[in-house]
Amino acid sequence: MEVKEDKVVDIGLKELAKKLEDFAKARDWEKYHSPRNLLLAMVGEIGELSEIFQWRGEVEKGLPNWEESDKEHLGEELSDVLLYLIRLADICGIDLAHAATNKILKNAIKYPPKCFP
Amino acid sequence: MEVKEDKVVDIGLKELAKKLEDFAKARDWEKYHSPRNLLLAMVGEIGELSEIFQWRGEVEKGLPNWEESDKEHLGEELSDVLLYLIRLADICGIDLAHAATNKILKNAIKYPPKCFP
Amino acid sequence: MEVKEDKVVDIGLKELAKKLEDFAKARDWEKYHSPRNLLLAMVGEIGELSEIFQWRGEVEKGLPNWEESDKEHLGEELSDVLLYLIRLADICGIDLAHAATNKILKNAIKYPPKCFP
Amino acid sequence: MEVKEDKVVDIGLKELAKKLEDFAKARDWEKYHSPRNLLLAMVGEIGELSEIFQWRGEVEKGLPNWEESDKEHLGEELSDVLLYLIRLADICGIDLAHAATNKILKNAIKYPPKCFP
Repeated sequence: MEVKEDKVVDIGLKELAKKLEDFAKARDWEKYHSPRNLLLAMVGEIGELSEIFQWRGEVEKGLPNWEESDKEHLGEELSDVLLYLIRLADICGIDLAHAATNKILKNAIKYPPKCFP
Repeated sequence: MEVKEDKVVDIGLKELAKKLEDFAKARDWEKYHSPRNLLLAMVGEIGELSEIFQWRGEVEKGLPNWEESDKEHLGEELSDVLLYLIRLADICGIDLAHAATNKILKNAIKYPPKCFP
Repeated sequence: MEVKEDKVVDIGLKELAKKLEDFAKARDWEKYHSPRNLLLAMVGEIGELSEIFQWRGEVEKGLPNWEESDKEHLGEELSDVLLYLIRLADICGIDLAHAATNKILKNAIKYPPKCFP
Repeated sequence: MEVKEDKVVDIGLKELAKKLEDFAKARDWEKYHSPRNLLLAMVGEIGELSEIFQWRGEVEKGLPNWEESDKEHLGEELSDVLLYLIRLADICGIDLAHAATNKILKNAIKYPPKCFP
């Protein structure tokens, strides 16, 4: 974790995976964390995330007219999806830091950047 | 990015967000990256991830009987969800590293660890 | 609607679409019912449906050990998905009764039934 | 099924459920149709449906500027979601025609229509 003046500046995928593993162990929740259980839990969170956006019509970048409380709620729902996703990858034995880095490289080859004259 | 012997050991959420921003800029894709477009693209990837698990019945931790190619495919679909999620948070102006760290703390208060005698 | 002894025996997709249109008109909700709003609302309901199944591990056909109240809750969430789906199709000008009938025919050609000697 | 001049005018939820049951039986697919398998298959189709809408920005009612082939594709994806939804309900022993009719009544009580002077 990169911290500056007491604020989290960045955090790694593997750090998060470790935190989530410790969290589950301390609560005896590992028995619930099968791949398909976690996948469905993540779909549940995708639903909650979608509900935030459902009746708003198109939304502008940076959410200029949103209440601070709505942005905070959004941050929580995005986090819920993220945490289940990282946990799902970990439980499946997938190295997500490695896979995501590779996927960006693969995409860069599939979609070469535009050339400028 | 933490690298050891030429292998990515860990990567931060903010590092990934920066990579994705550069990626979109280099391809003139920023105009497509509105919040709801990215959200629906992520739901599309959730669908592809679900397809991997759909006809398998319950799946064991660590995916003991999966083909290597199926695991690689899974790593790619998990990455696709992750990358759209990070990009969506970034476009919304949400600090996901901060939000996710906070969410874990909040969950730890909501669900205290079991006490052992 | 097919009714027998005061009970709804079957109901048509178009009948449901008409009911939903009347429902929205009577509440002045048509302005909210754009295609992408309805799609995201449906994803929200998919999330609620997934939550019912998320921590249960594999579930048997007919839900033999479920509480009556859980089954009722499931019926409501399935209905919520259905109603948004029908409304989405209607708002898009898609004839779902026609499309679904065709899709079954197309699938029957794509996957011919097994032949028995 | 209500047919007029050789065209399907409407089709009932129970009629569709019966067709899908016969379809699965004729292909020996019943063994795959567990509740969570069907749920994940439906999430897969929700993903394909979302992909149709993902990069379009806001979409107008009636899809005025869409190609005919895109509308047909949309009809197929909407149907795929519908058919898995109906099959899921049936496998769970849920009477969807009954549940959906009840849900509309319940919503009508929860959200009374606007009164006009």
